[in-house]
Amino acid sequence: MAEHIVKFDIASEAVSVPTGALITEAAEKAGVEINQPCGGQGRCGRCAILVTDGDANIRRRSTLRLSANDVKSGYALACQSVIEGDVEITIPPQEKIERRLTTDRTVGKVAVPAGYDPQKGQSIRRVKVKLSPPSMDDQTDDWSRLQRALRKETGITAFQTSLDLMREMGTILRKNDWQATATVNTKSWDCPDCPAELLDLQPGHFADDEPLWGVSIDIGTTTVSVWLVNLLSGEVKTQVAEYNQQISRGEDVISRIIVAGKEGGSEKMRDLVVGTINDLLIRATKRVKTSPNAIFKATISGNSTMMHLLLGVPASSIRLSPFVTAVNHIPTLKATDLGLMMNPRAIVDCLPGVASYVGADISAGVLSSGMANSEDVVLFLDVGTNGETVLGSKDWLVTCACSAGPAFEGSGVLNGMRATKGAIEEVWINDETFEPTFRVIGASKPKGMCGSGLISLLAEMFLTGVVDKGGKVNTKNATERTRDGEHGAEYVIVWGAETESGEDIVITNVDIDNLLRAKAAIYAGFAVLAENVGIPLEMAEQVLIGGSFGKYINVEKAIEIGLLPDLPWERFQFLGNTSVQGAYLALIDYEARNRIKEIAANMTYVELSADNKFYDAFMSAMFLPHTDMSLFPSVAKMMEEK
Amino acid sequence: MAEHIVKFDIASEAVSVPTGALITEAAEKAGVEINQPCGGQGRCGRCAILVTDGDANIRRRSTLRLSANDVKSGYALACQSVIEGDVEITIPPQEKIERRLTTDRTVGKVAVPAGYDPQKGQSIRRVKVKLSPPSMDDQTDDWSRLQRALRKETGITAFQTSLDLMREMGTILRKNDWQATATVNTKSWDCPDCPAELLDLQPGHFADDEPLWGVSIDIGTTTVSVWLVNLLSGEVKTQVAEYNQQISRGEDVISRIIVAGKEGGSEKMRDLVVGTINDLLIRATKRVKTSPNAIFKATISGNSTMMHLLLGVPASSIRLSPFVTAVNHIPTLKATDLGLMMNPRAIVDCLPGVASYVGADISAGVLSSGMANSEDVVLFLDVGTNGETVLGSKDWLVTCACSAGPAFEGSGVLNGMRATKGAIEEVWINDETFEPTFRVIGASKPKGMCGSGLISLLAEMFLTGVVDKGGKVNTKNATERTRDGEHGAEYVIVWGAETESGEDIVITNVDIDNLLRAKAAIYAGFAVLAENVGIPLEMAEQVLIGGSFGKYINVEKAIEIGLLPDLPWERFQFLGNTSVQGAYLALIDYEARNRIKEIAANMTYVELSADNKFYDAFMSAMFLPHTDMSLFPSVAKMMEEK
Repeated sequence: MAEHIVKFDIASEAVSVPTGALITEAAEKAGVEINQPCGGQGRCGRCAILVTDGDANIRRRSTLRLSANDVKSGYALACQSVIEGDVEITIPPQEKIERRLTTDRTVGKVAVPAGYDPQKGQSIRRVKVKLSPPSMDDQTDDWSRLQRALRKETGITAFQTSLDLMREMGTILRKNDWQATATVNTKSWDCPDCPAELLDLQPGHFADDEPLWGVSIDIGTTTVSVWLVNLLSGEVKTQVAEYNQQISRGEDVISRIIVAGKEGGSEKMRDLVVGTINDLLIRATKRVKTSPNAIFKATISGNSTMMHLLLGVPASSIRLSPFVTAVNHIPTLKATDLGLMMNPRAIVDCLPGVASYVGADISAGVLSSGMANSEDVVLFLDVGTNGETVLGSKDWLVTCACSAGPAFEGSGVLNGMRATKGAIEEVWINDETFEPTFRVIGASKPKGMCGSGLISLLAEMFLTGVVDKGGKVNTKNATERTRDGEHGAEYVIVWGAETESGEDIVITNVDIDNLLRAKAAIYAGFAVLAENVGIPLEMAEQVLIGGSFGKYINVEKAIEIGLLPDLPWERFQFLGNTSVQGAYLALIDYEARNRIKEIAANMTYVELSADNKFYDAFMSAMFLPHTDMSLFPSVAKMMEEK
Repeated sequence: MAEHIVKFDIASEAVSVPTGALITEAAEKAGVEINQPCGGQGRCGRCAILVTDGDANIRRRSTLRLSANDVKSGYALACQSVIEGDVEITIPPQEKIERRLTTDRTVGKVAVPAGYDPQKGQSIRRVKVKLSPPSMDDQTDDWSRLQRALRKETGITAFQTSLDLMREMGTILRKNDWQATATVNTKSWDCPDCPAELLDLQPGHFADDEPLWGVSIDIGTTTVSVWLVNLLSGEVKTQVAEYNQQISRGEDVISRIIVAGKEGGSEKMRDLVVGTINDLLIRATKRVKTSPNAIFKATISGNSTMMHLLLGVPASSIRLSPFVTAVNHIPTLKATDLGLMMNPRAIVDCLPGVASYVGADISAGVLSSGMANSEDVVLFLDVGTNGETVLGSKDWLVTCACSAGPAFEGSGVLNGMRATKGAIEEVWINDETFEPTFRVIGASKPKGMCGSGLISLLAEMFLTGVVDKGGKVNTKNATERTRDGEHGAEYVIVWGAETESGEDIVITNVDIDNLLRAKAAIYAGFAVLAENVGIPLEMAEQVLIGGSFGKYINVEKAIEIGLLPDLPWERFQFLGNTSVQGAYLALIDYEARNRIKEIAANMTYVELSADNKFYDAFMSAMFLPHTDMSLFPSVAKMMEEK
């Protein structure tokens, strides 16, 4: 049998292996350690390597988790690739592989949109003025005098301002010999014909490179994100995020609405979220060595409940049939109205929502995803505490929300938890031994399982026969890990000896039922939207996944359990926090803000709870992956191959 | 000599008098008492009677203080009218005569302008709406649903509202089965293109005759006046007035500006005037059995200093050269911005001023005087703590302000006082005995002299030779009443035995000098305005006198001392508080508000302190009545006749 030379970039010497050897085998011979969390089953994708020379001498048995582009670039799964000639191989840094597999967990640098012109897009302007001082020949009042100068510099004819600035104006103008720097909101999205507004006036002239600060904020049910932006350039200068302090009063929107409805509850909820935002504003401004008072504009996105709680507007009608919000299109506010720590006169623009369960986060998400400009049909989903789905293109958009429940956030699952340190975020099960391998967030003993871990676990259990099509744990397999527990049949992922608490980490039939309900609700949403517009789901040329949870979904696993439609890997794209991205675009670009308004106004909302088709679709999706296996051909094929 | 029969309406029997007898003589014979405060000299006009039959048998030797119309109607001065045939005479009630002579001291009923249509003129509207309740088929949010209903009822497309109303909206709409009554500001004078604003929402439907309240407010340096108006009809329902509590911190604008400039002074001054207004709002609303919270709109007028102090805007630049205000055209505010006791969302519209010493009171006064619509040239003056003058017609308006000083308000005069109980308001001096007669405000012993009393006194002293042309007291007359006192030469008006304090009430050379300065400043203002536009003052077809003080000026006396130009009596008209009247028109009529804006913007302001012509004119006017007697032909004639 022919021998071939294999050179690894990080190995001191090349090795020789026979035809048919796997790259993992060659690596072992060369003393190169390659991570194989799934035990070389070709399912985790973490053994991806780069063939830098002799790609033709490699036969890829499987390219699962690699895109066509990846393969073209020379990537291969070490455990699934057979050596048939001489090759040179580079081991990408582990970190780089992880980034390829799950969207970056740390926030990356945000690029200012190509071709963006702050002069045109930004409504807030800084204007340096030099006034002619008053004299006996020109006794014009200070405010008219200032307006005259502003008019000259901006070409804008009408200005308004607030009483408190009026009180300071005279002193400021006289402080530096009638030279001053004004901050002006040239136009408001909800009143383009209103006078421009003078937001601030400072003595003297600011340096040209002195930033003008704005923030885009996403109020998630779980996490609040703040991007601090220099409005003069559009650049995101820092990003901070923190748990929404409201969590202490309820994990999901429903329980928060209930709390807010009690005596003093609305004020409490408002204080908590405003407190969260203010902490973040302080942290962000500290990083760039400025003060919150220097922030002059904010765009805020979030689901409808979060928006209502922020405003202190009663949210109870969101929870009760016929599920209406108090307000979708919120008028422009001032920071002082909401108690936000910015310049008190800062413009606060709460983005518009569509319905009780399709909020501003989705309107903003649709904008930032680009689907509203797409010629092709796109499926957009934001899986957070709830699951919202939008189907459409530049010509039409339909949307629905499914109360998926918080199962994927770890709630309603015995050993479920949020995606924090100690959470199992990915699982592989050996199909012979039923022994699991897993990955834990942070350097920690496992404490429980987060959403992505649960999806991964359920898929592995299904593929290896630990559970059946109906999601029931099969206790007949030759392993101690399946057993009848306190909560019915269960599978042990981690023995107590290895866990943080000392207790076994398990998944039970009851947990699985909750997960099935959640995934069935989401999938049924896709199905109903597609049916409502009369197109097959496969027509979706792209599947765009936003939201904090969506970021960590493993697409194959999600397809395997029937959570995502069975479409080619290339069509899927993780967009991260599309809500804050949309808020960012609205912050820097007046036209983008208008687009969000149009998107929110024109999106057709399908109320699933009033739709019989939804119940049928939901029941059909309560199996792994689905009752109708023709909808999941790749999964069917995988099952057959076993 | 022929005898004639004279019948008085209030006498039991007719009397017979010879040809040439005066009506006062006939009255005495008939036992009819006729008031003659000036001692039958034909100067006070208070003996006016009505000849109901035989007018041709009466020869009027003088008709001073009677208008041509009065004479046509049969009025005659009893002390100046000679009987030459049989006559029947009616004695008007004394009150009626007083009202004819000085404009009514009590506030009369205000007529809604003829042809006024509240539907067209009033920007605030009450709108009854009935919404279709939300359902699974119509999940429109509350605010959009309400806007839809408002749109249907009003035809207005865009609405805005405040956060606090947004918070209450859902509850209010559901309270009475989705029927509600909205209060809407359909357009704002400073942003006609802005969305209409929902100011209030109440459950159920209001009765059609339930008033919608607004107020027009005049903040005088001395007195604050409030008119409470039903905006649905335009009717003034009640009027209240009270001293401006700021008086405790200074009598004139200059001293108040100084106080406001001290630490905490601005807040204090604001509290005082807001306190005054709030007391009046409570009093006015109590009278009509409503609450201040039911007031949805206010227009506020006042001089520039009063406006600045109300807003809490620094007023110091008003006082110092080059005398500029911080703001003339004030943006629309809310009641809550100023702490005014109205509905917190009530629109507060501060009317525009022209310059530091020509404020909103003058812009409003010019509107309400009608001079800005006049084909003829009109002279408008508002004599309060300061003297502001406007000359012009529908085509042009020039204005100036003279720091007349507070002499006419009783300040700077030893026994001067404001026009309250105990003030001598009119004086007559017998030209033989030099004994005075006087009228006191209220049933009280005399305490001092108010402005109208001082003008009257000065005129009488001049005509009877108690003072000379230069205003010096002549101590050579055969009377104990002129003497050398502590403060130089003086004239005793009331002996101590008859006064409240027990001290003599006197006027000194120093007092007279202060009065001369005040009157000279005002007259010089007229002269400079006329000279600036190149027309003689006599071209003024009307002289319109507004302001709290102007109300009580005796025109003849004012002409005699050279305070007012020597024009026929018929041209003079007392308009009362033109400032609050203008504010009232702006309150009920959007177009009137726009007119005030135009008037303020287009009036040409002449700064007297920068005008050499003013100094010359002032010096020439420092005499009684003037150095150039040709300017005062009627006074010259009167002097010659003596």
